[in-house]
Amino acid sequence: MLKWFVPLSVVFFAGSLVGDLTHLPPVFSFFLTGIAIIPVAGWMGQATETLAIYAGPRVGGLLSATFGNAVELIIGIIALREGLQTLVKASITGSILGNLLFVLGISFLIGGIRHPIQRFNVKAARSQSAMLWLSVGVTFVLPAAFAASAKTDPSVGKVVSFVAAVVALVLYLSGLLFSLYTHRYLFETVHDAGEGHEQPPLSLWVAVVSLVITTVMVAFESEWLVGAVKVVGHRLGWSDVFMGVIVIAIVGNAAEHASAVWMAWKNKMELSTEIAVGSTLQVAMFVAPVLLLVSYAIGQPMSLLFSWPELMSMGAAVLLVVVLMLDGESNWLEGALALGAYFVMAVGFFMLKGLT
Amino acid sequence: MLKWFVPLSVVFFAGSLVGDLTHLPPVFSFFLTGIAIIPVAGWMGQATETLAIYAGPRVGGLLSATFGNAVELIIGIIALREGLQTLVKASITGSILGNLLFVLGISFLIGGIRHPIQRFNVKAARSQSAMLWLSVGVTFVLPAAFAASAKTDPSVGKVVSFVAAVVALVLYLSGLLFSLYTHRYLFETVHDAGEGHEQPPLSLWVAVVSLVITTVMVAFESEWLVGAVKVVGHRLGWSDVFMGVIVIAIVGNAAEHASAVWMAWKNKMELSTEIAVGSTLQVAMFVAPVLLLVSYAIGQPMSLLFSWPELMSMGAAVLLVVVLMLDGESNWLEGALALGAYFVMAVGFFMLKGLT
Amino acid sequence: MLKWFVPLSVVFFAGSLVGDLTHLPPVFSFFLTGIAIIPVAGWMGQATETLAIYAGPRVGGLLSATFGNAVELIIGIIALREGLQTLVKASITGSILGNLLFVLGISFLIGGIRHPIQRFNVKAARSQSAMLWLSVGVTFVLPAAFAASAKTDPSVGKVVSFVAAVVALVLYLSGLLFSLYTHRYLFETVHDAGEGHEQPPLSLWVAVVSLVITTVMVAFESEWLVGAVKVVGHRLGWSDVFMGVIVIAIVGNAAEHASAVWMAWKNKMELSTEIAVGSTLQVAMFVAPVLLLVSYAIGQPMSLLFSWPELMSMGAAVLLVVVLMLDGESNWLEGALALGAYFVMAVGFFMLKGLT
Repeated sequence: MLKWFVPLSVVFFAGSLVGDLTHLPPVFSFFLTGIAIIPVAGWMGQATETLAIYAGPRVGGLLSATFGNAVELIIGIIALREGLQTLVKASITGSILGNLLFVLGISFLIGGIRHPIQRFNVKAARSQSAMLWLSVGVTFVLPAAFAASAKTDPSVGKVVSFVAAVVALVLYLSGLLFSLYTHRYLFETVHDAGEGHEQPPLSLWVAVVSLVITTVMVAFESEWLVGAVKVVGHRLGWSDVFMGVIVIAIVGNAAEHASAVWMAWKNKMELSTEIAVGSTLQVAMFVAPVLLLVSYAIGQPMSLLFSWPELMSMGAAVLLVVVLMLDGESNWLEGALALGAYFVMAVGFFMLKGLT
Repeated sequence: MLKWFVPLSVVFFAGSLVGDLTHLPPVFSFFLTGIAIIPVAGWMGQATETLAIYAGPRVGGLLSATFGNAVELIIGIIALREGLQTLVKASITGSILGNLLFVLGISFLIGGIRHPIQRFNVKAARSQSAMLWLSVGVTFVLPAAFAASAKTDPSVGKVVSFVAAVVALVLYLSGLLFSLYTHRYLFETVHDAGEGHEQPPLSLWVAVVSLVITTVMVAFESEWLVGAVKVVGHRLGWSDVFMGVIVIAIVGNAAEHASAVWMAWKNKMELSTEIAVGSTLQVAMFVAPVLLLVSYAIGQPMSLLFSWPELMSMGAAVLLVVVLMLDGESNWLEGALALGAYFVMAVGFFMLKGLT
Repeated sequence: MLKWFVPLSVVFFAGSLVGDLTHLPPVFSFFLTGIAIIPVAGWMGQATETLAIYAGPRVGGLLSATFGNAVELIIGIIALREGLQTLVKASITGSILGNLLFVLGISFLIGGIRHPIQRFNVKAARSQSAMLWLSVGVTFVLPAAFAASAKTDPSVGKVVSFVAAVVALVLYLSGLLFSLYTHRYLFETVHDAGEGHEQPPLSLWVAVVSLVITTVMVAFESEWLVGAVKVVGHRLGWSDVFMGVIVIAIVGNAAEHASAVWMAWKNKMELSTEIAVGSTLQVAMFVAPVLLLVSYAIGQPMSLLFSWPELMSMGAAVLLVVVLMLDGESNWLEGALALGAYFVMAVGFFMLKGLT
């Protein structure tokens, strides 16, 4: 059964299309397209989940883990083709901060208002903590440190950043091997609690056709969104970095945001944290390296050398979340801490007019 | 029953007053006033605790948490009025390092000499760890990172630092709401162990009058102390930073220091760590933001942008203490580690003749 | 019973000697000597362990903890005498990264292939975590921060670094006092599991004579190795830093590497992590400070002010390992994470042609 987001997807897509053809004011068109992507992402997510159920837990897990990021990948590739590397990098930063602090923060806060103490599997939290630190502390911060130390030779930073991205991708795939094959039993209770032996919500053919349609829709909408970014940024006085870190990141992750908060409200914190932290890891260790490789393939090479405010924000966010999750419990105050940190970063990126 | 610190307060206050009137050599007068503040702070603390008992646990908790920092606030405001922003910022750094490393270190060491292993509530330690990291990693380090990245536009750092301070203050008040109202039961065993159903040590009127008298005494003594700082620093070759980080910080926190160590000696580690970490959080998330707001109000604006040695020291201290407290146990070696770290920092700030 | 490494030691030593006398090409001679040190280190290790068993657990523990680093100390002192401070500092960085990431990573990976989940004492892991963070975060990072802030006065960095080294040495000795005297019972199960009431493998006199012979052999081989370093680096295009971080560090720690991996294969993770983390602490808190003191004594003063890529790598490695060990469990994926981080760092140091 297709859900509410199908009609919404169609209506907003049509609106965006009309806006593009009739040359609406770009600010209006920008927000319309931004909103239009959200229901399409939800529809795409449902189609992916359905295919995953048909494919069985192993191949299905692989499918969800890779196609779950289709929206971010499509927006990223289109922006790269336009030469908007800064925007792409900023949207990676934004996805990481958004998933870690905004999504987890809202989940802890909303869930914590209804349930005084919420518990989740501390083992899973700890194993994700190491991955989180590796992805940010090692694959993002270290290349920047080497680049800063070899100022006269910019190739050092580029090579180290490229190698780090490939290492992150290999480790991400190793993580899938770990959770889907060699140590699957460790993760089973988590999935069972959430999915049970669910019936697929769609028939196989509806799912496949949905995936094709939504991919085309997201591609068009991303094209319009990215086309409007420059103009809108200039009009509103928003920098590329702020657009990437806050706006694009929220659009690209809206579906995850909604479901993580919904799970927290239903006291399924295991799923809620899995979505928030899992999405972060997917962005850092899968989307970012793939975009790097694509950028070289299409002749618009991008490095994963972030600016220091971005690195510091990501590092501070990872350490905060590691400390918050260590005890396997959450409450509304922990949510407020994460949201407070996110707010400070958002103000910082809004104030920064350009990154160096 | 008023304790030993009342006569001491009066004697030292009289001594300082005579010193001020007879123009004693400033070095002598500086140390006399510094010592004079310590018993007054103890007296003020007893008066605050008494009022808190009369006010009942909720309003009382609020009273202790805010008036417990009266000495630091008064010294800070007087120094701000004199335009000594560097000194004020350095004394914030010093209070944080002093409470985290010096107080906790001495407590672990002294307590550990008598009791081989001392245990404390690991849940409280973990929830404070997140607060600690937020206050230092997010509200102090991030604004500095944004400021460093926007060198040509000093307003960026100021705005981010201001916003971060307000966020910290709101989160601090949220923390009080959490521990005094919504999740009070989590903290009750801790307070019961320490305070039981104690009789107030003073009558209500003695407490109120004590609070008024001690506030006036601290105000005068702070005036004299701050007045002597510049001269003494010059005479002894001590920089503003060293004066703030080590000297002013020790004077402003002497009462907490004494009671934390005393609790450790009696094997009440819960109270000992609560005092050390709680005071740190009060300084970082209450005293510092309030001083920032006051500085704008009195037209001597101060930012909370610290120097890198200060930020690195605070960051290293927080991570060390988080790791030390994670297991809910302490021993003399852990105390020695914290003291060793404090000593290295003290030497560093002594060597630094000016901060950039 | 002397083991296989005795004949190997003699054969390789003879080979290196012939190489030195006949002026073999330096690249060949360099690798020959590098390999020659490995079996001698194994022989020396066995002699030390034997003496430790004769001396009883307390003095024996002290013997192992200090003479266990004889190879690194000898190579370091000879390199200092030649004025190769950069190489010595880089080999300290390399020993720390190698023990933490390479040795622990290989152990977790190899052990994890055979045993799905491996467990170790989480208490020991936590107490070592604090030491690790202190040694890197406080004694290495802080002096660099103070030095960077006082650019016009290089004495600040030197003094703070010197003081930090002395503090680290005192804390290392305190740690021995803790584990061998005041809190010995905490560590006993660990040692019993590994060593039982073992018979000494050698007679006392064989052990003493072995120690003398191997010390002389290591001294000669270090002389030849260090003599070849400059030439070989130039030939192969490898910088001093890469030579130190990767090559010298692997040669100096080969014996520890082998035994840590062997213990992991036998599922004795307690011993495996103890070797990896223990060796790191010995290098950071004993070998490095002693080399600093020796450098002043022989008039070739060295500071322990590391470059930012070195500090960032060490900091990232410590935090990664702390997070990996926190749960007291390991698996092959955790090993892969550590190895991935090591690989990124190795590429970075290979690319860097000089450190600033």
